[in-house]
Amino acid sequence: MRTIIINVTVVTMNDQREIHDPGFVMFENDIITAVGDMKDLPDKAGLLHTVTVDGRNGILMPGMVNLHTHMGMVPFRGLGDDCKDRLRVFLLPMEQKTMDEELVYLSTRYGAGEMLLGGVTTALDMYYFEEEAAKAMDEMGMRGITGQTVMDEGACDFAHPREALAYGENLIKKYRSHPRISACIAPHGTNTCGEDLLLEAYRMDSLYKVPFPLHMAEMDYEMDYFRKEYGMTPVRYLDSLHVLGEETLAAHCIHMTEEDLLLFKEKGARVAHCIGSNTKAAKGVAPVSSMLRLAIPVGLGTDGPASGNTLDIFTQMKLCANFHKNETRDRSAFPAETIVAMATIQGAKAMGLHDLTGSLEPGKQADMVLVETHSPNMFPVYNPYSALVYSANPSNVEEVYVAGECLVKGKKLVKSDMDEIRKALSEKMKKTDFGIYMAKMGNIY
Amino acid sequence: MRTIIINVTVVTMNDQREIHDPGFVMFENDIITAVGDMKDLPDKAGLLHTVTVDGRNGILMPGMVNLHTHMGMVPFRGLGDDCKDRLRVFLLPMEQKTMDEELVYLSTRYGAGEMLLGGVTTALDMYYFEEEAAKAMDEMGMRGITGQTVMDEGACDFAHPREALAYGENLIKKYRSHPRISACIAPHGTNTCGEDLLLEAYRMDSLYKVPFPLHMAEMDYEMDYFRKEYGMTPVRYLDSLHVLGEETLAAHCIHMTEEDLLLFKEKGARVAHCIGSNTKAAKGVAPVSSMLRLAIPVGLGTDGPASGNTLDIFTQMKLCANFHKNETRDRSAFPAETIVAMATIQGAKAMGLHDLTGSLEPGKQADMVLVETHSPNMFPVYNPYSALVYSANPSNVEEVYVAGECLVKGKKLVKSDMDEIRKALSEKMKKTDFGIYMAKMGNIY
Repeated sequence: MRTIIINVTVVTMNDQREIHDPGFVMFENDIITAVGDMKDLPDKAGLLHTVTVDGRNGILMPGMVNLHTHMGMVPFRGLGDDCKDRLRVFLLPMEQKTMDEELVYLSTRYGAGEMLLGGVTTALDMYYFEEEAAKAMDEMGMRGITGQTVMDEGACDFAHPREALAYGENLIKKYRSHPRISACIAPHGTNTCGEDLLLEAYRMDSLYKVPFPLHMAEMDYEMDYFRKEYGMTPVRYLDSLHVLGEETLAAHCIHMTEEDLLLFKEKGARVAHCIGSNTKAAKGVAPVSSMLRLAIPVGLGTDGPASGNTLDIFTQMKLCANFHKNETRDRSAFPAETIVAMATIQGAKAMGLHDLTGSLEPGKQADMVLVETHSPNMFPVYNPYSALVYSANPSNVEEVYVAGECLVKGKKLVKSDMDEIRKALSEKMKKTDFGIYMAKMGNIY
Repeated sequence: MRTIIINVTVVTMNDQREIHDPGFVMFENDIITAVGDMKDLPDKAGLLHTVTVDGRNGILMPGMVNLHTHMGMVPFRGLGDDCKDRLRVFLLPMEQKTMDEELVYLSTRYGAGEMLLGGVTTALDMYYFEEEAAKAMDEMGMRGITGQTVMDEGACDFAHPREALAYGENLIKKYRSHPRISACIAPHGTNTCGEDLLLEAYRMDSLYKVPFPLHMAEMDYEMDYFRKEYGMTPVRYLDSLHVLGEETLAAHCIHMTEEDLLLFKEKGARVAHCIGSNTKAAKGVAPVSSMLRLAIPVGLGTDGPASGNTLDIFTQMKLCANFHKNETRDRSAFPAETIVAMATIQGAKAMGLHDLTGSLEPGKQADMVLVETHSPNMFPVYNPYSALVYSANPSNVEEVYVAGECLVKGKKLVKSDMDEIRKALSEKMKKTDFGIYMAKMGNIY
C-alpha cells in the first residue's frame, strides 16, 4: 500500500537537516519512498493508487527514540517519589513481592501504548521476564529492543543469573529475524554484576551484534565503591574488562571524568541521557556538552515510569534544553535542533538502528509522528524545532506510524484500546499481592 | 445556584493540607460552602436544588496562580528562541513595530484562554495598553491583576512614562470595585526606571493597595550596573529608595545575596519564581530553598510566552521540582506538596489574594481545577501531589471554575471558542506590519 502525507512541515533530521515547509512524505508499505516540498508533489499519474493523508499544517517528524526505560514498572509510578531511600523502601520490596510474567506483559502493553500516544516509536526496554515485554511491544506495533536484566543476586524472575542468561539468549534467538523487535542481555549495572557476569553478557551481546545496555556512573555510592575497591571509575573498570565497545549503551553517565569521556569516544560507546529521572532524583546532570563536542552518540531516555514518571520524550527535550542551557550559561547552547536530533537520529545511532529509523529519508522505515499545531500551545510556529522542544507536549501527537503502520490516529490508538489495557493492568494489580502490600504500607501521603 | 462536585480527590491546600479522598466540594454562586469526605456528603434534603457534577475520580485542586506573565506577547512565541541577543534582535524591535491596542486585546484573549485550558485561574499580567488586557481577561472570566508597564524610555504605548502613569491610574480606578480584576502600575525593572519613576509608581500602588510588580535581579548586566553605579545590589537599591515592602512582587530574583533575602523577609516582599524562563535563557536558578526557609512568599510564573513558551503552571511545577531537588542534591527536598503550594496558595499570598483564592475552603471563591486521571500518563495515582507535579500536563485539565463559573468543560472553553480567538489574532498579525517585518527577517530556521 502506498500513502502520502501532505501539507505538513517535514522535519527530516537527515544529515543536511532539511526542512520541507510545506512538504510531503510518501511511503510504500513500510518504506519511505519520497520526501519533498509540496511544490514538487508527484503529478496525478504518480499518485495513482495512493492514499492521501492531509496533515493540516502539522509538523511531521521522525518517530522519537526512548533509549532507556523499564516499562514493567508502570504499577510503581508515583510511589514514594519524594522518599530519600525510595529504591530500598518501595521499589525493591514491591518488585520482589509482586512482579511476575503477567504483570510485566500487561505493564509493557500499557507503557508501549502510552509511549506511542506520545510519539515514541522505538524504545530500549530493560527489565525482567523480557520475553513478555517483547511480546507486548510486538503486539502494540512498536519498534524496540528488549534487554533481559541479569544481576549477581538474582531477581524477581530468576534466582540465579545463569538462568537469566539462558532465558535472554533464547529470547535473542527467538527475535533474531523479527522486523521490529530484537533482544539483548542487559547487565543491571556496574556494581550489581561481577566480572564474570559482565564478561559473559558482553560476549553474548557482541556475538549476536545487539546492544550491551547497562546503568553506569549513576549513583554516588557506585562511584565510591569503584574508587575504594579498584581505584578507578566505573568506565575505566569496564574498559579494563574489555567490555567497553560500540555495543555499550550506558544509561545515565552522570559522573564522568574527561578521561572517561575520551575512553567512550575511543571505544565508540554510547550514552542514554535521562535528564528527567536524574534531576528528579537529585543525582546531577551528565556532561552532555562534552559528549557532543566529542561526537559521542547521545540520545534521550525517560527511565522507568517509577523514576521519571512520564514516558514521553517531549518532557525530556524541554528538561534537556533548560538544564544544559542553564549549565553552560548560554541561551544559544543546545539549540532546539540539537535537542530534536538527540530525540531522533542520535537515539537511533545509539541503538545501532540508524539505517532503519531516526530520520525521514527515502529507503528508511516509515516511523513518523505528526504533531498537530492547532492546539493553543502550538501557536505561532516560526521554527518547527523550537515548537517541538519549547512548546509541544505529548497531547499534541495526532498520528503515529511505525514501519508504515498507522498506530495512532486522532490522538487514539488504532489497533488497541487504552482503556481496556488499563483495566486489565489494574485488575491484575488488585489480584496480586500488590494491593495487600500497598494497604500494609498505610496512607502514602 | 448551588453545585456539588463529587467523587474527586480534593486537594484543599488549606493550612492543614487536608486531602479528602474520595471527597466533595460544594459551592453556591461564587463561594465555596462545604468541603469534605464522600462519607460525610449532605443527605438528600441538604442537596435539594443542587446541581451534581461527577468528578469521576479526578483530582480537584485550587485554581493555579501564574504570578508573572505578559500575555500580549503571544505573537512572539518561539521567535529567536536560541538567539543569544534575542531581546534586542527580535523582541524590542518587533514590539515597537507591531504592538497596538487591538493586538494586546486579541493576544490577551488568546493567552487567557490558553491559561484557563491549562488550569490557571489567576494571573498577574504586566504589559502595555493594559486596559485592553483587563478587558480581555474580564471577558474570558479569569481572575487577575493587570500591571500597566512604565519605563523611563517610553514604550510602544506611550512615549513618556508620565502618560503611562496617568493611564495606569485611570485603569486602577476603573477596576477598583470589580469582583475579579484589578490593576496596578508595574515599573518595568530596576534599571529601566529611574528613582523618580520607581517612587511615583510605588506611591500609587501603595495608595490603592495593589501590588508593585517589577523585574528584579534577573540580568547579569543589571547586577553589574548596580554594583558599579551604586555599589549595591538591586534589592538594597530598592530598599534605599523605600520601595521594598509588602506590595513589592519581584519577578525572577535569580541573583540574591543572603542580605537581600533577609531584607525581603524583613520588608515582607514577595517573589515570582520563573524557573522555566530563567533556565531556558541560561540565567541561573533563584535561591528558592533559602526563600522558603525564610518563609518569603514565593509562587510560580510562566513569564511571557516569548520567554517561557508555555503558559501553564504544570510545566513550571515539574521544572521547579527537578531544578531545586538537583541543586540541593536531595531527592526529598522540594516535595510535591511544597511545589503544589507554590502553584496555588503561595502564589495567592504573593498577590495578596489569599483571602479569595489559592485553597479550597468554605468562604473562599470557587476557583477550582478538575484534573482527570483517566489519561494514560495519570495511572496509577498513589499521591495526588505527586501525580500533579511529576505526571500531569495541561492536557489533563478537564474542568475549570472561576468564582463558581464553569469556564472549561470537557477540556474546552465554555463561553468562548479558542479557534475563533486564534483566527482573530492570526488575522490581526497578518494585517499589521507584523507579516511584512517577519518576511524581511527572512527564513528564521
